[in-house]
Parts: sequence; C-alpha cells; structure tokens
Amino acid sequence: MKQKLTVVKIGGNVIENKKELTRFLQLFSKLNEPKILVHGGGKSATKMASKLGFESKMTRGRRITDANSLEVITMMYGGLTNKNIVAQLQANETNAIGLSGADGNTIRAHKRPVKEIDFGFVGDIDSIDSALVSALLKSKLTPIFCSLSHDGKGQLLNTNADTIAAEITIGMSELYDTVLYYCFEKKGVLMNVEDEESIVKHIDTKKYQQLLHKGIISDGMLPKMENCFHALKNKVGKVYLGDMEMLKPNTTLFTTITL
Amino acid sequence: MKQKLTVVKIGGNVIENKKELTRFLQLFSKLNEPKILVHGGGKSATKMASKLGFESKMTRGRRITDANSLEVITMMYGGLTNKNIVAQLQANETNAIGLSGADGNTIRAHKRPVKEIDFGFVGDIDSIDSALVSALLKSKLTPIFCSLSHDGKGQLLNTNADTIAAEITIGMSELYDTVLYYCFEKKGVLMNVEDEESIVKHIDTKKYQQLLHKGIISDGMLPKMENCFHALKNKVGKVYLGDMEMLKPNTTLFTTITL
Repeated sequence: MKQKLTVVKIGGNVIENKKELTRFLQLFSKLNEPKILVHGGGKSATKMASKLGFESKMTRGRRITDANSLEVITMMYGGLTNKNIVAQLQANETNAIGLSGADGNTIRAHKRPVKEIDFGFVGDIDSIDSALVSALLKSKLTPIFCSLSHDGKGQLLNTNADTIAAEITIGMSELYDTVLYYCFEKKGVLMNVEDEESIVKHIDTKKYQQLLHKGIISDGMLPKMENCFHALKNKVGKVYLGDMEMLKPNTTLFTTITL
Repeated sequence: MKQKLTVVKIGGNVIENKKELTRFLQLFSKLNEPKILVHGGGKSATKMASKLGFESKMTRGRRITDANSLEVITMMYGGLTNKNIVAQLQANETNAIGLSGADGNTIRAHKRPVKEIDFGFVGDIDSIDSALVSALLKSKLTPIFCSLSHDGKGQLLNTNADTIAAEITIGMSELYDTVLYYCFEKKGVLMNVEDEESIVKHIDTKKYQQLLHKGIISDGMLPKMENCFHALKNKVGKVYLGDMEMLKPNTTLFTTITL
C-alpha cells in the first residue's frame, strides 16, 4: 500500500489576513506528514504593483502578466509571502521548505501560446518532478509551493495556484495515495450562495452536471471544479473543498468531490 | 577522504548588473558539484525601499533593519533575486534550489541583542543544519542561499551574506573538504587600490597584521578578512578572494588566504 500524502491549497483570503493565516498554519502543522502546501498571494501583488505605479493590464476582462507584474509576483508570492509562511511553520515545528517551480526544477511549464489573447508571462504546466519532491518529503521536509513555474530556459512564469495544486497532486499520485484539499472562503459548494450552511456534501460527475445546469456552479467556481475533476481523473485519491476548518479532525462541513 | 564542496559568495556589484550576473552564473554552473551559492542583493532593496517611500534608517552610521526594511529585503533578496538566479541556473543545467535560512531550518539565528545600537531585525547565526544541506546536495541539488536567517519563532532576520557564506562553509566542513570563494569587484586584496593588478597573491595571519598596520586593509575589507580567518580557524580548507574570473580553471589572479 502506498503512503498517504496530503496536499492543501490556500487562497488569497487566508493569506491576506494575518490572524486567519496564523490559524491556518496551526491547523496545517497538525496534519500528519508527508504533506505539501500550495499558496497564491491574493491581492498583495496587485496592491504592490499599484504602489509602484504599475498599471494592471487587462485584455477582454482577462488579467495579463507583463514583465512588471511578473517581477511583483516573484517578489510578493515567491519572496514575502512564501518566506513568512515558511518561518511561521518552522515556529510550529513543521520543517517547511519554500519552493517556486524553478527550485529543483519541480514545476516545468511553457509560456502560454498567443491565440486570441496574449496572456504574457503565464505558464501552462508540462511536468512535475515527483521524484525530487518525494526526496524532499523523505528528508522530512514539507514543501511550500508559491504560484510560479519556469520554462527551463531561465524564464519564471505565473501559474494559477489551483492548477499547480492539482498538477502536483497528480504528479505525486504515482508514488503516494493522495488527498487534495482546496481551502477557500466558503464551507464548500453552496446550494444557496446567501446561506453559508447550505453545503452540498457530495458532488460526483452527474451531480456536477446538474449543478452546472441550474447555474449553482458558475464564475470562479467553474475552473476550481474543473481542477477537482481533472485531478480525480488522473489518479488523485480524494478531493475536498471547504474552508480551513475542514482540516480539523472529525469535521464534516465541506464538499467531497468524486468521479 | 572527504568529498570536495565549493561555496561561492557573490556580492551586490555582480547581482545588480544583468550581463555580469549572466556571466557569473555561467562560470558558477561549470564548477564541479557539489556546490553552494550565497548571495546578497546589493542596492536593489535600498532602491525598492526608496520607491516605496521607506526611509533608510541609520544610527551612528550603521544601517538599521526595521520592519519595513526586512519586508523589502525578503521581497527582493528572498524573492526576486533568488528566484531569478535559480531560474537562470536551471537554464545552465544546474539544478538549483533557492533557500533562506528559514527553509529547511538551514540557518538558525537570534536577533542581535540591543547594546549601544538597536540594529533591528538583524540575526547573528547560531547553527547551520549541515545534515539537511548535505541531504539536498546528495539529491544533486545546488543550494542558493539569500542573506536571510530565522529565529525558529517565526521571525525572519537580515544576516550579512559574507557571514552566512563563512558559517555555512564552516558547518559543512564536518562532512566535506571545503573551499570558499569570496567574489567581489576586485581581483583580490590590492597593495595599491588605484592599481587593479597589484594583487597580494597570498595573505597569512602574519601578512594580515602587516597589511592592517600599513592601512592597506581597512573599511569594508576588514569584516570580509575577519570572515576569511574565522572560516580558516574553523576547519574550512581554503579561502580565496577575487573577482568572478577566479572561478575559471587555471587562473592565478586572486588572493589566497591561509592561517
């Protein structure tokens, strides 16, 4: 039997709130090892870009990662956020090691080809070095990934943190029995967005189609759900969606996704 | 016989110049493994702090690392500089992994006690986790350290890159036959600061006292030389001082330091 590996992704809402981040890192520290954390950086990069006088570039409503944005993302997500998470986890006795996809060549990607939109320095993932990540885990380290990949030619690339979490968990599923937690601001998928307690406890492929049809899953939840099903179709054992409290033992308030 | 380990420290003048950094990383990539790089970040943090409207705090001519400075150093050295060096080394087929002292608990320090001056968030090193660094080297990784340590209680600390290079090399000397290269803007210690070719080829303890006496070693060179002798007194095999060209095979234009 393979060893269990837990991968947790946290979103910007937790990262941005010092008190919530501290609580999250306590919960994360209590999870059994081996484990991996993936984080974005929320609005910190946008705020910093605006302080530095860089305009946010948008094309047809989509955010563009130009050279300035990439610099700010590298500073904020790869530097400030990642290193502070690592330092806090060390205080919680988790031997964390912060990584971008360039570190140890862990996440190799290519710059998204220009079609209707030129997204700039955005990376679509080609491969995860699961053997190296596994070597780090075997050294009792807990990898903390920020949302940066690289192209192997010297270029860092901005990559969606949900996607990184899915692809890392898929990559590690050859070697481990994997569980993926997507932590966000809600307790799970809600039947009624106004009612925080209206959690859909279980979503499978059929239920997903129904929820899509009724418009209950839309907008920002769509790519997240797509990542969940993509992971499950590629040997990830279990996928859960909810707020950070789902990391506590014996909690049942979250959404379980299955095929 | 122990395996040879090369530790190289590069200074701000190289980091700040894109062309020079590229050349340095090519030379570094050609060095035999295992190897370690230690970098500061030069004036990038000061420039960014000034862009963000943070004043540089000085007390009695000494720079103070206040909370704002530490944030900027974490962004610039731990983020932008470190990740770009790692990505470029990956392009040169060196499997680099960027680290602060918090990552893997590699460099543990304590906040410098307040005596005449409160230096702020400055760390004096207590220990290097040489077993973990060695595990990374055995995974064929090349650690790239920025000039940040941590106190194990969640606090990152600004630590001089020359000191980090010396302490890491000392820590690794239990396990490896170590060589430490301090790369800076000169070809070595110069007899005449106006004459770039007036390199003092060899400095031992006695010669060092003479040079100090004559005022040939002063100012910024003093702590660097102190780090060299501190390293040599603590089982570091060899210490060299010069510009990046000393990393080429068969070069003799540099200063060798011995006890």
